[in-house]
Amino acid sequence: MTVRTSPSPISHQWQLMRRPVGVPVAEDFRYVSVELSPLADGEVRVTNEFISVDPYMRGRMNDVKSYTPPYVLGETMVGGAIGRVTESRSDALAVGDLVQHFQGWRDVAQGAAAQFRKTNEIAGVASSVFLGALGMTSLTAWVGLFVIADMQPGDTVFVSGAAGAVGSAVGQIARSRGAGRVIGSAGSDEKVAHLIDRYGFDAAFNYKMGDVAGQLATAAPDGIDVYFDNVGGDHLEAAISSFNDGGRAALCGAISSYNSSEPPVGPRNMSMLTTKGLMLKGFTIGNYLEYSPQFAAEVGPLVASGKIVYDETVVDGIDNALEAFGALMRGENLGKMVVRIGG
Amino acid sequence: MTVRTSPSPISHQWQLMRRPVGVPVAEDFRYVSVELSPLADGEVRVTNEFISVDPYMRGRMNDVKSYTPPYVLGETMVGGAIGRVTESRSDALAVGDLVQHFQGWRDVAQGAAAQFRKTNEIAGVASSVFLGALGMTSLTAWVGLFVIADMQPGDTVFVSGAAGAVGSAVGQIARSRGAGRVIGSAGSDEKVAHLIDRYGFDAAFNYKMGDVAGQLATAAPDGIDVYFDNVGGDHLEAAISSFNDGGRAALCGAISSYNSSEPPVGPRNMSMLTTKGLMLKGFTIGNYLEYSPQFAAEVGPLVASGKIVYDETVVDGIDNALEAFGALMRGENLGKMVVRIGG
Repeated sequence: MTVRTSPSPISHQWQLMRRPVGVPVAEDFRYVSVELSPLADGEVRVTNEFISVDPYMRGRMNDVKSYTPPYVLGETMVGGAIGRVTESRSDALAVGDLVQHFQGWRDVAQGAAAQFRKTNEIAGVASSVFLGALGMTSLTAWVGLFVIADMQPGDTVFVSGAAGAVGSAVGQIARSRGAGRVIGSAGSDEKVAHLIDRYGFDAAFNYKMGDVAGQLATAAPDGIDVYFDNVGGDHLEAAISSFNDGGRAALCGAISSYNSSEPPVGPRNMSMLTTKGLMLKGFTIGNYLEYSPQFAAEVGPLVASGKIVYDETVVDGIDNALEAFGALMRGENLGKMVVRIGG
Repeated sequence: MTVRTSPSPISHQWQLMRRPVGVPVAEDFRYVSVELSPLADGEVRVTNEFISVDPYMRGRMNDVKSYTPPYVLGETMVGGAIGRVTESRSDALAVGDLVQHFQGWRDVAQGAAAQFRKTNEIAGVASSVFLGALGMTSLTAWVGLFVIADMQPGDTVFVSGAAGAVGSAVGQIARSRGAGRVIGSAGSDEKVAHLIDRYGFDAAFNYKMGDVAGQLATAAPDGIDVYFDNVGGDHLEAAISSFNDGGRAALCGAISSYNSSEPPVGPRNMSMLTTKGLMLKGFTIGNYLEYSPQFAAEVGPLVASGKIVYDETVVDGIDNALEAFGALMRGENLGKMVVRIGG
């Protein structure tokens, strides 16, 4: 007779093995199966429903000084995720609870209950939405507009990468606060149409058709007051040229340079910062989490009622997470990119 | 017998005749003698003692959209000046009053009394000081440090062009508010020594010796928190690289590009604005004049008591004003550059 213990649970995870040069390649990562140890007192185990893949993660793959520390080589990449508690040795969380956490690129997560935040479910709202339109993504839009760029009613607002999860939230949240004119750029004609038809932008253009400065000047004949930058590079230079006196930019990311191993060319019109009294301010959302309640109170009802709409691009399977990230880098997503676990 | 009326007073003035391309040349200007009309009711005539020449004037010679409008071709260039009332048809000002005004590049000015602001003389303080250490120059330093860059006690402060009138005020005013470390750049070894020996900078370097980024990193081994930019170009890029998280830059001028007819190269490290949460904000002092009383209350006593020191470079004669401006552009001044009239 053989005595068998029940098998240890397995967690499938993605780890960064070397710093990518330029566009990340498969060889920069490894996909591992980890045997999980039994829970200690105060710990919970969570089976993820969705994990978030976001542009900022490309930055964390580099070894650069930053508010957000770089990914540690040989360790599993962290990031936003949402799942359900499947086993609990903590009074704080019960089996079945929906929880958010930052353990990222894995299908099963476990650790001290304090690392997991219980999420109040909303009828009819998929759990993925708490990673996007009701989560960090829209919080990023809200903080950039109001805390960083001090958007005021009547302002003309320009957002680059506007068909992405952050960009589409920027346009709609700006509109809901009374922006005078909302302008977006995106990387295809289909996305441009989507910005106007679905997200209600007043004007939009395809930056891959060239001459960003010229297209922006046409879309904003009276100039812009606020710029929400997801792209950097020629978009930032174009925004500086189109700014009215006193313009403000919230710099959220620079996807145009994430995969470049050459230093990008900087804006050639920086002297306009002085002559027009402009402000550029960068931010990473991790330093502004204290605004979450204020954001949720304002934006939650708008999303729940459908006044703010959103799209998701869903990739199935933790084994496809790296492919999802690559598609995100190539701009193949519409709205928030998530990986569905277990489907 | 011949009846003679007294001759009309003459004002010698400098006018811009065409927009300079690159370094201004004599042919861009004309020096004229203007017969002044008799005073109308409410007007005064002022014989200037000093006129101010400032780097920002180069910007006004271009025809670009700006808070500060460009100089009008064929009209006398405006700017700060101080002089004495020699004739008055206004109750507001009496003959002998010391007054400041913005009529600029001329030896005799006249107009409505409201255009002239009476200055309270201080025993032992030359009237030129009201154009510099007790005037717009130091106000610019104060506003940049505290209103724009939110300097806090303990901050490490870097100022470029530090031997100039604004720069030397920046360093000393920052120190008086408790800056932890004050670093300056200047364009000669003599100026570098002067920054340390006379203005009390903790460290300084000669940017003409090359590698601004490397020299700044050596001078600020623990990074910088505030950057006051008088130069632009490679100085701004170096500051961005040396900034600690949350660093703030006040962009006051970009003398490195004033005389360039090519667009300058922009900072190649703009993505650090996001990763380090940096802010860059440009300003022109004309929009912040409401801070004058607060500035005067704080800085006036420091200058009067000698706790803040200053230098002046004095050029004699209104006919030499253009030469004075050229010397300023070439960095040949130490401290505030003024033209003495009549002296």
